[in-house]
Amino acid sequence: MRIDVLTLFPDMFEGVFGASILGKARDKGLVRLSAVNFREYSTNKHGQVDDTPYGGGGGMVLKPEPIFAAVEDLLRRKEAETPQTEAAAEDDTVPTPAPPRIVLLCPQGETFTQRKAEEFAREEHLIFICGHYEGYDERIRTGLVTDEISIGDYVLTGGELPAMVMIDSTVRLLPGVLGNENSAVTDSFSTGLLEYPHYTRPTEFRGMQVPDILLSGHHANIEAWRRRESLRRTLQRRPELLDRLELNKQESKWLDELRREEEDRL
Amino acid sequence: MRIDVLTLFPDMFEGVFGASILGKARDKGLVRLSAVNFREYSTNKHGQVDDTPYGGGGGMVLKPEPIFAAVEDLLRRKEAETPQTEAAAEDDTVPTPAPPRIVLLCPQGETFTQRKAEEFAREEHLIFICGHYEGYDERIRTGLVTDEISIGDYVLTGGELPAMVMIDSTVRLLPGVLGNENSAVTDSFSTGLLEYPHYTRPTEFRGMQVPDILLSGHHANIEAWRRRESLRRTLQRRPELLDRLELNKQESKWLDELRREEEDRL
Repeated sequence: MRIDVLTLFPDMFEGVFGASILGKARDKGLVRLSAVNFREYSTNKHGQVDDTPYGGGGGMVLKPEPIFAAVEDLLRRKEAETPQTEAAAEDDTVPTPAPPRIVLLCPQGETFTQRKAEEFAREEHLIFICGHYEGYDERIRTGLVTDEISIGDYVLTGGELPAMVMIDSTVRLLPGVLGNENSAVTDSFSTGLLEYPHYTRPTEFRGMQVPDILLSGHHANIEAWRRRESLRRTLQRRPELLDRLELNKQESKWLDELRREEEDRL
Repeated sequence: MRIDVLTLFPDMFEGVFGASILGKARDKGLVRLSAVNFREYSTNKHGQVDDTPYGGGGGMVLKPEPIFAAVEDLLRRKEAETPQTEAAAEDDTVPTPAPPRIVLLCPQGETFTQRKAEEFAREEHLIFICGHYEGYDERIRTGLVTDEISIGDYVLTGGELPAMVMIDSTVRLLPGVLGNENSAVTDSFSTGLLEYPHYTRPTEFRGMQVPDILLSGHHANIEAWRRRESLRRTLQRRPELLDRLELNKQESKWLDELRREEEDRL
């Protein structure tokens, strides 16, 4: 997979692209990451990439030309790196490369979810466009981008952090990226329930004990306790998730008990 | 404001803490940012900070001791930097420093919103605890943290990117941090509507025109067009936001028209 980020702050990406899972995926050749400063594509000798809005008002608006030029240069360079032989061009069984997904980070976009990460993980090429303070000229939206995405209902200084978030959640889904170090622990959303409580050594820490059952060695009881505690945490924090689940008879009984316990507690 | 991040990957924060608004806020002395590697607080000669879970199963669990020790060391150092004079200690009008908010980044947490950013911006000291792959020993939750937060319903490799997101959205709200370069353009959530389309030079780009009205110089008409386009975009993308708004007579009329236009379009 190839991921390019258009940004005025490419240095922000250095530490993140090099660390942890992204760094490992890059070292293994599973993803090619680049941050491109689109100021290099300014048509103006001062390197200007934004301008005042037509119709007046405060703020600046990102101009269309540098963004279009940067995307087109990326695609040209990609094509130059993978020259089609004449035979391949005539051979219908060689697939032509899929066009890239071009993602604009903006608060008005669709909210990013795990489902969108799974969708992105099936792409060959993602391009993220990050604005910073400014608005985007509408023609970037209508003439270039394929997706407008927001990562949540909060205001950020720019699209850089949202791009990193989407890249991290996408790349960790690529085949071969995660080793055994990443287990079910992080995969809260795949079971449909929140995680049960985890404990490790020491058995007592500042008067706080590990529950006896986890030290019992009785695996069936431990599994049952964990399932019940997952239900409890989901009931306490994200009760709407329970509506989507099919519970067995035992789980339904636990849920009734937990609901009564919660009522008594409050 | 003082913000400390506990992480096994402090290098990830370098580019982000130094760039843009966060870098400026730090240079102006409005916020003090640090990333602390809690591996330094391991009680184990191998620097181990996680261990296998009691009760079995895959994955690793972050041990409580290094996290508690790191937080306590931060608080000790903060106290040492701001020595209380005897007079101040006896003077009831000198406020004792508020205890820090200690925020655990985890998928099971409350979802971060702009309201939470505003709440965080009123604090004196924030501490973010970032896990990475691992689960957290439950005693970190019950004995140390004040808030468990998630930035959205997607799975990430660690808490580092969510911490950066929360820090960015919090710090930009601190008095004195934003200059005039940041205007209403980014403040989508404050008006209750999504942004209207923005345009800047050139008036024509690859056959795509700036709407005539924005070139008309007629300010009242431009304001009306922008308000109507904000309503349209909100109707198309986030119709649930409209329920919370009080519309005037003109706006209600526009909304009826826009609903009909949308029906015709689909």
